Amino acid sequence: MAKVKVAVNGYGTIGKRVADAVTLQPDMVLVGIGKTRPSFEARRAAERGYPIFIAGNGSKADFDAAGLATAGPVDAMIASADVVVDCAPEKVGRENAKKYLAAGVRAIFQGGEKADIAEMSFNALANFDRARDRKTVRVVSCNTTGLARAASVIVPHWGVTAWEATIVRRAADPAESNRGPINGIVPTFELPSHHGPDVRTIFPDLRIATTAVVVPTTLMHVHVNHVILTRPPADAGAVIARFRQTARFHLFAPWEHVDGTPQVMEYARDRPNGRPDMMENVLWDAGVRVDGSDLYFFQAIHQESIVVPENIDAIRAMFGLAESGAASIATTDRALSIPTP
Amino acid sequence: MAKVKVAVNGYGTIGKRVADAVTLQPDMVLVGIGKTRPSFEARRAAERGYPIFIAGNGSKADFDAAGLATAGPVDAMIASADVVVDCAPEKVGRENAKKYLAAGVRAIFQGGEKADIAEMSFNALANFDRARDRKTVRVVSCNTTGLARAASVIVPHWGVTAWEATIVRRAADPAESNRGPINGIVPTFELPSHHGPDVRTIFPDLRIATTAVVVPTTLMHVHVNHVILTRPPADAGAVIARFRQTARFHLFAPWEHVDGTPQVMEYARDRPNGRPDMMENVLWDAGVRVDGSDLYFFQAIHQESIVVPENIDAIRAMFGLAESGAASIATTDRALSIPTP
Amino acid sequence: MAKVKVAVNGYGTIGKRVADAVTLQPDMVLVGIGKTRPSFEARRAAERGYPIFIAGNGSKADFDAAGLATAGPVDAMIASADVVVDCAPEKVGRENAKKYLAAGVRAIFQGGEKADIAEMSFNALANFDRARDRKTVRVVSCNTTGLARAASVIVPHWGVTAWEATIVRRAADPAESNRGPINGIVPTFELPSHHGPDVRTIFPDLRIATTAVVVPTTLMHVHVNHVILTRPPADAGAVIARFRQTARFHLFAPWEHVDGTPQVMEYARDRPNGRPDMMENVLWDAGVRVDGSDLYFFQAIHQESIVVPENIDAIRAMFGLAESGAASIATTDRALSIPTP
Amino acid sequence: MAKVKVAVNGYGTIGKRVADAVTLQPDMVLVGIGKTRPSFEARRAAERGYPIFIAGNGSKADFDAAGLATAGPVDAMIASADVVVDCAPEKVGRENAKKYLAAGVRAIFQGGEKADIAEMSFNALANFDRARDRKTVRVVSCNTTGLARAASVIVPHWGVTAWEATIVRRAADPAESNRGPINGIVPTFELPSHHGPDVRTIFPDLRIATTAVVVPTTLMHVHVNHVILTRPPADAGAVIARFRQTARFHLFAPWEHVDGTPQVMEYARDRPNGRPDMMENVLWDAGVRVDGSDLYFFQAIHQESIVVPENIDAIRAMFGLAESGAASIATTDRALSIPTP
Repeated sequence: MAKVKVAVNGYGTIGKRVADAVTLQPDMVLVGIGKTRPSFEARRAAERGYPIFIAGNGSKADFDAAGLATAGPVDAMIASADVVVDCAPEKVGRENAKKYLAAGVRAIFQGGEKADIAEMSFNALANFDRARDRKTVRVVSCNTTGLARAASVIVPHWGVTAWEATIVRRAADPAESNRGPINGIVPTFELPSHHGPDVRTIFPDLRIATTAVVVPTTLMHVHVNHVILTRPPADAGAVIARFRQTARFHLFAPWEHVDGTPQVMEYARDRPNGRPDMMENVLWDAGVRVDGSDLYFFQAIHQESIVVPENIDAIRAMFGLAESGAASIATTDRALSIPTP
Repeated sequence: MAKVKVAVNGYGTIGKRVADAVTLQPDMVLVGIGKTRPSFEARRAAERGYPIFIAGNGSKADFDAAGLATAGPVDAMIASADVVVDCAPEKVGRENAKKYLAAGVRAIFQGGEKADIAEMSFNALANFDRARDRKTVRVVSCNTTGLARAASVIVPHWGVTAWEATIVRRAADPAESNRGPINGIVPTFELPSHHGPDVRTIFPDLRIATTAVVVPTTLMHVHVNHVILTRPPADAGAVIARFRQTARFHLFAPWEHVDGTPQVMEYARDRPNGRPDMMENVLWDAGVRVDGSDLYFFQAIHQESIVVPENIDAIRAMFGLAESGAASIATTDRALSIPTP
Repeated sequence: MAKVKVAVNGYGTIGKRVADAVTLQPDMVLVGIGKTRPSFEARRAAERGYPIFIAGNGSKADFDAAGLATAGPVDAMIASADVVVDCAPEKVGRENAKKYLAAGVRAIFQGGEKADIAEMSFNALANFDRARDRKTVRVVSCNTTGLARAASVIVPHWGVTAWEATIVRRAADPAESNRGPINGIVPTFELPSHHGPDVRTIFPDLRIATTAVVVPTTLMHVHVNHVILTRPPADAGAVIARFRQTARFHLFAPWEHVDGTPQVMEYARDRPNGRPDMMENVLWDAGVRVDGSDLYFFQAIHQESIVVPENIDAIRAMFGLAESGAASIATTDRALSIPTP
Repeated sequence: MAKVKVAVNGYGTIGKRVADAVTLQPDMVLVGIGKTRPSFEARRAAERGYPIFIAGNGSKADFDAAGLATAGPVDAMIASADVVVDCAPEKVGRENAKKYLAAGVRAIFQGGEKADIAEMSFNALANFDRARDRKTVRVVSCNTTGLARAASVIVPHWGVTAWEATIVRRAADPAESNRGPINGIVPTFELPSHHGPDVRTIFPDLRIATTAVVVPTTLMHVHVNHVILTRPPADAGAVIARFRQTARFHLFAPWEHVDGTPQVMEYARDRPNGRPDMMENVLWDAGVRVDGSDLYFFQAIHQESIVVPENIDAIRAMFGLAESGAASIATTDRALSIPTP
């Protein structure tokens, strides 16, 4: 079967990771990436041999001056693709959507765009099958992905009477040197926050309320969860075991001495190969508690990478490349060196 | 009536503020402070004219070498006082308690000590009268004080069916240069956290569950609260109005452009006089939401100063210096330039 | 003699401090402050009783809605003043300068503006007399002020063959929650940096070369100085003694346990009254070294406040209110509770 | 020729990187790593198949409980090796040295140990040949390595009349969550700092004076250099070209938009394979300036990895595995995917 031709439009935090991930899949091929201006990231794209198409108001002269070869305007990339993964900055995706529609190419959007940009909102564990044959799909944001994955485990096994999550958000990504605060906490005055409704684009009936604060770190988000279960398990051990058996969950044991996100990302940096990313929901055995019908758990979410495998699975669902979500996840995770349970 | 003679044993973050606060009260006199070694803080104490008594394993020679006059060993200070406010580092208070008992002097302990160190745990809004004539009282910690104050408003007016609070904790105080993390979030693997039970030392029947994470900031803690009310008010306006009418609450309006703790502490630095402290629970009008029986609100807690007026009120309760909690609070807050509603 | 009528146009970090400082002087009166929009800082101005004039594109309706009384447009304030201290954001001062000129009012500008905005660049220790009877004066920036003060001590006593300073800059002020980096160091690619030439607006012949990096802190800048002296003193003790005898220098002794800027600002917060500011150049006895003709010293500079007394002295020089720089400095520092040597 | 058998004693920041690097060399084999207790890092070692030997006061029972296989006590590892690379925490190396001597095994120590721990101090560009046939070698610290590499370029080409460097140090490594400061700058009260004398263990006659401050970042150190050259080149272009032609230097061009260390480490994270490390001295074209005989340049030093290739070269020198430093460097860098000029 012919490989699906994938274009990645936008080569920032998410785009560069999706591009790498596409090249590692057995059933996909990367036709190029869209980039506005030369930069160290464009240099890396060139080193990896990715065709660079000029996006936005970029100019060929700028790339030429930098000594970076380009392959044409981004429209040419779009025309040559079966699907475009749009990784443009927030809100720009909506403009781009018109182009994709005009070109008759399928498209995947990121969670920074509103839900109505696409036919459906996607999470591989939760609703893979609903994405089959879609023309447009939206992969939900990093925080929503983390919550949707957790719900995919909790809802079917123990039921949810009510779910509260406080999202402690990183203020900037590691390479963003112009964002703060340097010292302080900034509450998000949206009560409850938009994350709950966003989770319901995937689990329409889930009773979940979320709140958020922004804190001065670049590494990961942390979710503080309190779930009242309908059919609670005997103890935390059952919950831990279930999470450990599920794809895209990583649990740290106490003997590993992983106290918080600094060590989680150190663990990611110690990966034998690939990017220093943590594409799984990260939990701690010591950070799961069951007390009657109350389930408490912390989870850390690597905002830069958690949606990357989801984008890959979305492609596979749209093009019928896998029999099931589980099959797609297994293929994706093997390709990306994400350990399988 | 003779003023109550107050000694402050330990002159760190809390002790130095309590000492200043004592000197501003009309019915108290500061007999001295206990300090282990010379430091810039001892220098400031000397500049303010506070008698310095040598505590712990401190030596007079060290103070002499620094040119700081001392008034004797800490035991002399204890012997001369009606009450000692113990502000020693966590756990040291328990050792000191023996001394106070032996000297027959009353004592106030801080919330870093366990509840059984004293006859009762104290919060001025909640249980002032219970502290009358006590020999030993424990002022609860900064986070517990913040929650107890909020409960003092919420419980009587609207009732609490269930309360969830996530405490986003500052990792270090501003002058602590050897504590981290510099970049990362560290969950507290105690689920629920000890803050809930600590609030119940004051509100024994309150159904409250708390969780905590540590983040890289020095300014303030932030509490993310979700309370299910028994008799909810019509809207957030009623809650905001009630908080605004209560002593030791400060609410910021949207036009003040106070986005988070950096601006809260800037507001404190702009005080016309006194320390750049925020002794009130800090809320935002925009950060209060009522949705049916659900009340959401953020509150910021200045860990360095919030317990200071509580220590003053505790003294007043123990020695019968005020007819009521409200009367004591009014006296304290006027003396400390805390605006009264 | 009639007090000089001072207007402060711009009420941010510097403006609010200059306004407070003016109100404390025996020979000046504050006619008002210029502010664009209501904010917590405008609220504090109102609490202090400062007349608020509406600047820039501000609207009276906005202040009315906030319940803050206003005194008219900023032009009215300018017309009523003998001198305007311009504390508008960088570059805006140049626009404002036209207004001041048209109104025939004298003006003081801050160091964020280029030197040619005024007749001279000013530092009280260095060139007070040159500001006499000027119509326009520019108070140099915080870093330049720190270097100029140090040069005022070093140049006359020991001579400077060559001076190197690396300026380790704070990335944001404490209340700026939208500036970074959160984690990282950003070199200033201007080699040498503009600070050296700016010092030469005051010491034209000084051989000084400066470099700068930006680091993720909000508290203070730190200068790392290496000066080759023409007539070196016997040892560091002579240098320390000289700095200690000079106004606007503060030196910490080893026994004070002040390891870095966190404790310096804690010391400032422990001030008996006034803002938690450190208007002096801060040095450490342990951070001064003389080795032959080489003088090394660290100094910390509180970017928010160091220029405040300089603005006051500039007014006094322009209006002939003091016989000498030393006399003005003594008056200013007494009023601002800056310890005098 | 038989491969050299290398043991790595200590598996922290440096040790784990050296172990990985050894396994990638054509002429070396890793016989094991010494580790005190189970941890996530030990887990990674096990995943990579490295034999784990129990060091210090570690116990086999702890590793067994964690499910991590061990290969015996660290003494067994030492006995089986041709050379031990000691990567124990600072000061522990001196204790370990006795063991290595007793076992008759050669040893390499890190720069945290004093110079007299070994026969010589090493840097591959500077003095590879001096390490031939040595029994003990000390690889200098990260900062000294960075300065020694730069001196290896500057000294022979243009001569050094005097060199000043201010070292802006990271306060903690990324995974250290208990070190601060979170907000502040801490000067190093050692004037000049020990780095200058440490560089002279390699360049005995170099006139270099260094100073240091600690800042709240985890990513990299930055050196601010000012060198007075004896035979200056015509312009910065000549210096940039020379650095670009030298192994283990990486220069960023302006079009790459690398403003500071956040983007440098992002560039490292974008490596096609291997750890997200930057083993080269990092400079910026825009951060090099020549003005007469004055050379200014910034360089960023990745404290975690810069000494890794140096340890490899030290082994090769000690065992005569390469004809020259240049040959060894070429082999090492190819194996570690460090680009060669």
